[in-house]
Amino acid sequence: MTLQLSPTTPAERIVALRGQLALSGLQACLIPTADPHLSEYLPEHWAAREWLSGFDGSAGSLLVTAEFAGLWTDSRYWAQAESQLQGSGITLMRAGAADVPDMLDWAAEHLRQGDRLAVDGRVLDWGAAARWRAGLDAAGVALVLNQDPIGLIWSDRPALPMAAVFEHVPPHACRSRAENLEAVRRAMQAHGADHHLLSSLDDIAWLLNVRGADVDYNPVFLAHALLDADRVRLYVAPGKIPADLAARLAADGVELRADTALAADLAALALNATLLIDPARVTAGTLSHAPQVNLIEAINPSQLLKSLKNAAEADNIRQTMAQDGAALCEFFAWFESALSAGERITEIDVDAHLSAARARRPGFVSLSFATIAGFNANGAMPHYRATDASHAVIQGDGLLLIDSGGQYLGGTTDITRVVPVGAPSAAQRADYTAVLQAHIALARAQFPVDTASSVLDAVARMPLWRRGLDYGHGTGHGVGYFLNVHEGPQSISVRAHARPHQGMQAGMLTSNEPGLYRDGKWGIRIENLVLAVPAAQTAFGSFLGFETVTLCPIDTRCVVRELLSADEIDWLNGYHHQVRERLLPLVDGAAKDWLLARTEPV
Amino acid sequence: MTLQLSPTTPAERIVALRGQLALSGLQACLIPTADPHLSEYLPEHWAAREWLSGFDGSAGSLLVTAEFAGLWTDSRYWAQAESQLQGSGITLMRAGAADVPDMLDWAAEHLRQGDRLAVDGRVLDWGAAARWRAGLDAAGVALVLNQDPIGLIWSDRPALPMAAVFEHVPPHACRSRAENLEAVRRAMQAHGADHHLLSSLDDIAWLLNVRGADVDYNPVFLAHALLDADRVRLYVAPGKIPADLAARLAADGVELRADTALAADLAALALNATLLIDPARVTAGTLSHAPQVNLIEAINPSQLLKSLKNAAEADNIRQTMAQDGAALCEFFAWFESALSAGERITEIDVDAHLSAARARRPGFVSLSFATIAGFNANGAMPHYRATDASHAVIQGDGLLLIDSGGQYLGGTTDITRVVPVGAPSAAQRADYTAVLQAHIALARAQFPVDTASSVLDAVARMPLWRRGLDYGHGTGHGVGYFLNVHEGPQSISVRAHARPHQGMQAGMLTSNEPGLYRDGKWGIRIENLVLAVPAAQTAFGSFLGFETVTLCPIDTRCVVRELLSADEIDWLNGYHHQVRERLLPLVDGAAKDWLLARTEPV
Repeated sequence: MTLQLSPTTPAERIVALRGQLALSGLQACLIPTADPHLSEYLPEHWAAREWLSGFDGSAGSLLVTAEFAGLWTDSRYWAQAESQLQGSGITLMRAGAADVPDMLDWAAEHLRQGDRLAVDGRVLDWGAAARWRAGLDAAGVALVLNQDPIGLIWSDRPALPMAAVFEHVPPHACRSRAENLEAVRRAMQAHGADHHLLSSLDDIAWLLNVRGADVDYNPVFLAHALLDADRVRLYVAPGKIPADLAARLAADGVELRADTALAADLAALALNATLLIDPARVTAGTLSHAPQVNLIEAINPSQLLKSLKNAAEADNIRQTMAQDGAALCEFFAWFESALSAGERITEIDVDAHLSAARARRPGFVSLSFATIAGFNANGAMPHYRATDASHAVIQGDGLLLIDSGGQYLGGTTDITRVVPVGAPSAAQRADYTAVLQAHIALARAQFPVDTASSVLDAVARMPLWRRGLDYGHGTGHGVGYFLNVHEGPQSISVRAHARPHQGMQAGMLTSNEPGLYRDGKWGIRIENLVLAVPAAQTAFGSFLGFETVTLCPIDTRCVVRELLSADEIDWLNGYHHQVRERLLPLVDGAAKDWLLARTEPV
Repeated sequence: MTLQLSPTTPAERIVALRGQLALSGLQACLIPTADPHLSEYLPEHWAAREWLSGFDGSAGSLLVTAEFAGLWTDSRYWAQAESQLQGSGITLMRAGAADVPDMLDWAAEHLRQGDRLAVDGRVLDWGAAARWRAGLDAAGVALVLNQDPIGLIWSDRPALPMAAVFEHVPPHACRSRAENLEAVRRAMQAHGADHHLLSSLDDIAWLLNVRGADVDYNPVFLAHALLDADRVRLYVAPGKIPADLAARLAADGVELRADTALAADLAALALNATLLIDPARVTAGTLSHAPQVNLIEAINPSQLLKSLKNAAEADNIRQTMAQDGAALCEFFAWFESALSAGERITEIDVDAHLSAARARRPGFVSLSFATIAGFNANGAMPHYRATDASHAVIQGDGLLLIDSGGQYLGGTTDITRVVPVGAPSAAQRADYTAVLQAHIALARAQFPVDTASSVLDAVARMPLWRRGLDYGHGTGHGVGYFLNVHEGPQSISVRAHARPHQGMQAGMLTSNEPGLYRDGKWGIRIENLVLAVPAAQTAFGSFLGFETVTLCPIDTRCVVRELLSADEIDWLNGYHHQVRERLLPLVDGAAKDWLLARTEPV
């Protein structure tokens, strides 16, 4: 026997995969970017697409046949993929471009009747599996979900994370486990489901008031959960849950089971048991163990429940926002003084100093996503990330965009500010002012309860659209409570597909982040988090407004005051009045001076 | 044999229907408001729901079982239905109210396993039939589509209309039949369909440049059409198409067939022929004749094609709008002078004088819908119609709302104006100004090509929402070109379901009609038609704006100038400047004086 070594380059790995496909009688293999929990961030163990292709963007799918290997990824990643795929023999398929077929269409067209296409069913969501099966069926191609050819060639595959798990407790946790369980069980009953399976980590963490650190930036832990009317079976790798937490979970009817027990427990469900699942949040591989049950497909009830922050959570969020804002004051005070002292500051330094300022604040746990600090042209890439190998020095004139956030026990933050370095140009100031007007338009909006969140995006964009300007990302995503910085179900995006629970409800916490990006020149984004709150009750219905909860000066040095309406000026000055009042008690020294200077009315 | 007389009251008719159901072994009968063409307005022959129930609103469905008869209708018609259903024994089911089940849910819950529910399949659209079949299947109830129990008891059922059919010719027709046919055939090819069946009358009229008068207000004729790559078979009652038109149609490959030949022609299609149909625009009864074909379900290609007015159509529309506006000037000049002379004027008189003024204009064919003239409280009912039996005299102080339109050879018009009578109150002026601001917000909008039309509604509503105001109807519907005043596919409505081709494109003609309704007090709606036109081409894409094509003063006596922004005042004065310039050549005498007075800048 010889020691089997993993191939070491993407080109070698594709060759190895093709060999494995041939051995297994497979003609194609699809490698999505996903894990068994369909998380936004994957543990390395599940980063098969990156391992195979060398492309490390957060989105993309790889399709490999005997003659072809193609990576489909969206426009955010075309430049990066083009560079990272060099030498791999993998073709970049620019998803969304007019002449590039959808991946499924490509497969249906190029594979032959009788061919077999493999996807690791453990990482393919149930809804996507149904679409692929239907699409391939029509072409006479079989979809094989129970083989993992990559696992067979990836001999040094990283282990799964085993970070500690802990309880989220009062006063930071503001709902009891029993309360959450009761609400979800009511929804199960309404759906006529006697069981409910959760694989999505934020749903599980929220439901049980438990947090972890298995996934970058998201305080969650690897688990599945199976609920019925009386008990919750929680599937976690043995040894992760401390004994005292296990006992408290047991008191609420939560039974710990080894992660490996899920398959057998699913198989043991009664014939015709009714199982509520979210087709976008459970994989085909997981459900393959329960072919005997009746599936009831719907969005997880916890998606809406956790989006509705209650009064106690809102209070904690307000306090957390003040701490986060104070950290930003300290950072900006350092930044401006270091800059004027002529220190050499890079984008990497921005991240380091800002993260350190946050880490000094009470309740801080971690960043909520990788800091984006982009100077001038780098700021024009909405998903830019400075690396040790490639980053800019902040010098000369221009705009610095900083998008950052923290996980605190009392809430999750996400804020973007743009500050001038040296002397901003007239064009930069005009752009900045237009983005600010878009931000204010949404911040000042009032609308009936249950208004589709997508339509509010037009209100934000109109000040830009009217000038022939636009931006390629959504304006608002939901934000968790000491949970994922991206959550649903609301989505303030004109491009959002109709989904359940898109209507705005009181208690929803959403980002307000219009932007503008001049390729190769500069980028602008102004982001606060806003809480939907009751605003009026009239003969025409109940209306909501947004309470801006993020507290940090919006730099006014780039504002062209003459472009603002009286209402917009009032909003800006009112916001800065509040920022000053709320943050003053939390800062001193240079940070206090900076706060006072940057909250002067325009 | 005795002469079978039709029963004469709704109560008697329901009894007769129940007898017929019992004879036929049916436990329930659903009577929708529809005809074989799924038109907005039904020929009397198909008004079975009205005949049975006595309720003559335009929307509602009746469900009759041995023990129960219920009419489901939406909130617009609750008051009317409540009154018209008295004594019928029919329960009013307030569709949309929280405690009222959906009709299908009600049927699934109340019918028993093994029961049979009949619907006349000739008037049930294919999509609805699929939903009903699925819903009833789950309850073990059979859906019977090939019986017409009402036909058996309705012995004096009116005949189908036989109005004359005529060709729409240049210069008013701006596209050739050949061109239209080629465009639809290209779409058939893209769908992989060798045949295409049209039952919707506006699609057929548009496709063939033929118009008729079988349906109130819509210049269409009863027909079906079956297309393949070479020919069009047009199914019409014999004798309706003049010989010279038949010859011209034949020259374009359009073969006339008796309406009764459709069933056999569908049955004679090849096994596995591919038939493109729009599931919302073809009935299950029609398709029941072609069980052997493969259906390709998609929105009719003509829906998008006819929504995109070309440059020549746009020019004709502009001229038609000027004629329509001139007619309105003549009407309003008469109205104001008669009112100040102390004449007794009713809502009915308004309709008569306005219709007469339109009828004097070149190209006028008919009204495009029944005039809505509502004084004060009557104006608060968005679908109000004055009748000989019930209408108001216009006297005292208040607001008169007039929503009206015409069919002209060169376009279809639809306009709403509100004018003060006597002295409007401060509250009325504030409401009027808010609605005007909503109207202007949409009129001034600029947005990327293909922006979902639904999201633009939030832009219109925000000036109202911000004051806790709202209205219960959409803000904009598509308008045909000498065709139906309501057409798709675009819909400026926050409540619009996602449908194909919702994105705004250059050439779409849409209403802009925000409103505000104070129950029992007054109603306000300000409506112009707007044409989507290219507005800007920038690094961020192609942008559209709206050209307001309706030409008629917006009464400024109710405007609170101080509430308007400088931009809004500019828009209003700019609009009135244009109205004056464009209409002056078309009016004289009192109408000219009125035009000059009412287009003074504010």
